[in-house]
Amino acid sequence: MNSSQQLYLAQRVGAFRDLLREQKLDGYLLTHLSDQYYFTDYHSEGYYGLIGLHDSWLLLPNLLYDQAKAVTYGFHCLQGAFFSTLNIILKKNKLKKIGFDPSQLSFGLGAALVKLGFKPVPGLVAKLRMVKDPWELERLRKANHLAALGIKFVESRLRPGVTEKRMAADLAHFFNIKGNGIAFDLIIAGGANGAFPHHITSDHKLRSGEAVVCDIGATWEGYRSDLTRTLPLGKMPPSYWRVFRIVEKAQKEGIFRVRPGVTSGSVDEASRRIIRKAGYGSTFVHSTGHGVGIDIHEDPRIGPGAKAILKAGMVVTVEPGIYLPGKFGVRIEDTLLVTPSGSELLTQ
Amino acid sequence: MNSSQQLYLAQRVGAFRDLLREQKLDGYLLTHLSDQYYFTDYHSEGYYGLIGLHDSWLLLPNLLYDQAKAVTYGFHCLQGAFFSTLNIILKKNKLKKIGFDPSQLSFGLGAALVKLGFKPVPGLVAKLRMVKDPWELERLRKANHLAALGIKFVESRLRPGVTEKRMAADLAHFFNIKGNGIAFDLIIAGGANGAFPHHITSDHKLRSGEAVVCDIGATWEGYRSDLTRTLPLGKMPPSYWRVFRIVEKAQKEGIFRVRPGVTSGSVDEASRRIIRKAGYGSTFVHSTGHGVGIDIHEDPRIGPGAKAILKAGMVVTVEPGIYLPGKFGVRIEDTLLVTPSGSELLTQ
Repeated sequence: MNSSQQLYLAQRVGAFRDLLREQKLDGYLLTHLSDQYYFTDYHSEGYYGLIGLHDSWLLLPNLLYDQAKAVTYGFHCLQGAFFSTLNIILKKNKLKKIGFDPSQLSFGLGAALVKLGFKPVPGLVAKLRMVKDPWELERLRKANHLAALGIKFVESRLRPGVTEKRMAADLAHFFNIKGNGIAFDLIIAGGANGAFPHHITSDHKLRSGEAVVCDIGATWEGYRSDLTRTLPLGKMPPSYWRVFRIVEKAQKEGIFRVRPGVTSGSVDEASRRIIRKAGYGSTFVHSTGHGVGIDIHEDPRIGPGAKAILKAGMVVTVEPGIYLPGKFGVRIEDTLLVTPSGSELLTQ
Repeated sequence: MNSSQQLYLAQRVGAFRDLLREQKLDGYLLTHLSDQYYFTDYHSEGYYGLIGLHDSWLLLPNLLYDQAKAVTYGFHCLQGAFFSTLNIILKKNKLKKIGFDPSQLSFGLGAALVKLGFKPVPGLVAKLRMVKDPWELERLRKANHLAALGIKFVESRLRPGVTEKRMAADLAHFFNIKGNGIAFDLIIAGGANGAFPHHITSDHKLRSGEAVVCDIGATWEGYRSDLTRTLPLGKMPPSYWRVFRIVEKAQKEGIFRVRPGVTSGSVDEASRRIIRKAGYGSTFVHSTGHGVGIDIHEDPRIGPGAKAILKAGMVVTVEPGIYLPGKFGVRIEDTLLVTPSGSELLTQ
């Protein structure tokens, strides 16, 4: 890690301490892998972090201690059994009011922490993570560029007879080589399979005349991208293009609405009303979009009635779709950076 | 799903109902993806299951309803908001005492369920899942066979100059094509990287004279495999082979101990004592093994003092290691089926 990267991490911890003070907390236990990665740039299962107002600690199993000590910065690394290590930190540093995220740990662990006097304070790190800093944007730009290259890769290889699974495997290899792997289970859904928004990529052989929903994303240095194109294989009937144009317009309207100061619900509505007006409202069975960063689904949610206010530095998807069971599906998705004046396309 | 597969699912639900009766529960809420897959053979995020003594339900978001209805068997499929759907089921069927697994849902959701009178009952499904049925074994055999083919694939391509990442990407492609993907982030760790048991596969170029720890696994129809080989690249010094032989012996002794009726802790001790006696006790920083199935880490844990009693039908790993920071690591792992008379190697 270079010194500018260390500075970004220190700034994230600093900004988080401001939130702790606002909440009158002495510290916050990190129990979510992605939250831990955000503050440490160290990605591994099986450890916890604790950020106090003055010091920060990693609570590590023996297995990870050497590795964490070698690669992290700004955290005291401690190894041993979780609860005994935790108690030592709390006593030595006189930490009393400690928060944790109730959605990011098990009921069992949460109940044990509540007995110790810990306090559920939801979404504190998620709030910070919504607005990306320049180091994060650098990584997200690269991840999203890889996704755009991935679509070109698919376009160059899509042909009748290839299975969804083979197409997804080849693309995953491309992402593994060019980046740091896939951002989620890649969806390649041909024909009627495309009518399942979360189709599990299968042995189905793609056929001429099918629309192929390709929902793909790469990971770059822990950051994920998300991009969907619906690609026609051969000649498509006018009924397909009619639906395609509606989704295309819905996506454009949604993107056009993305700017600082608007509610995320209004972005959803901008897309949804186009589909509703065209008579397909009931076939658009999911939210219009979501934040994306270390996790593939982050705040803000962009769905009906969502109240989050968009801010410059947020990174969100806009991905309306129409799904016709037994026939086909169309979804078009891009990932956008909210800029001071509107938005910038990252998936290019 | 064919009728024999439907029968296996019905038998799993039936066996689970026996556990519910033992616990005097009217039902159990499934909140863990893998538990849900075990009973439904339907793999997707974002839904819940409820098994009652007489009926079973899937609580689905609109997004998944059509898909789940098309592919599942024996569960009533209901769509809509989770808590309102749940309340309708409870009232209509007069279900009062409902259990849930406190380690398999968030503190937030668990706290809300406890307010509704739900009861934390840990590990009830995990207990059932420890002993595999023939359909599961068929899938595990295939997954583990793929892992063994994967090692051959690596052996045929390992050479100085190739990066860890490229080796892992090529192997992941192999698993994606031949199976249903990777079972976990594949570990290819050359030289000193091998001294981190959970090394993150990097851009390090493998060099002649390095030992390469390859911890790999494939997925087949939702079941995972786990296999580690430490492969020498070129000529290795005698100091390496000395350590290698110790780990090899430790693994053999562990495997030899695997049979019905012994504690899982005694398997750990059988491996650990060899390493301890050779003077490397402090370098063996993890448990000797674990159960494996739908999840890569399942019960029983095979670690110091573990009290689980091995039974025929369990599938476990034996994977001792010695890690010398700054130098190299050696880990050897196989996955075994506990048979009535001992064990059977699955990773072949």
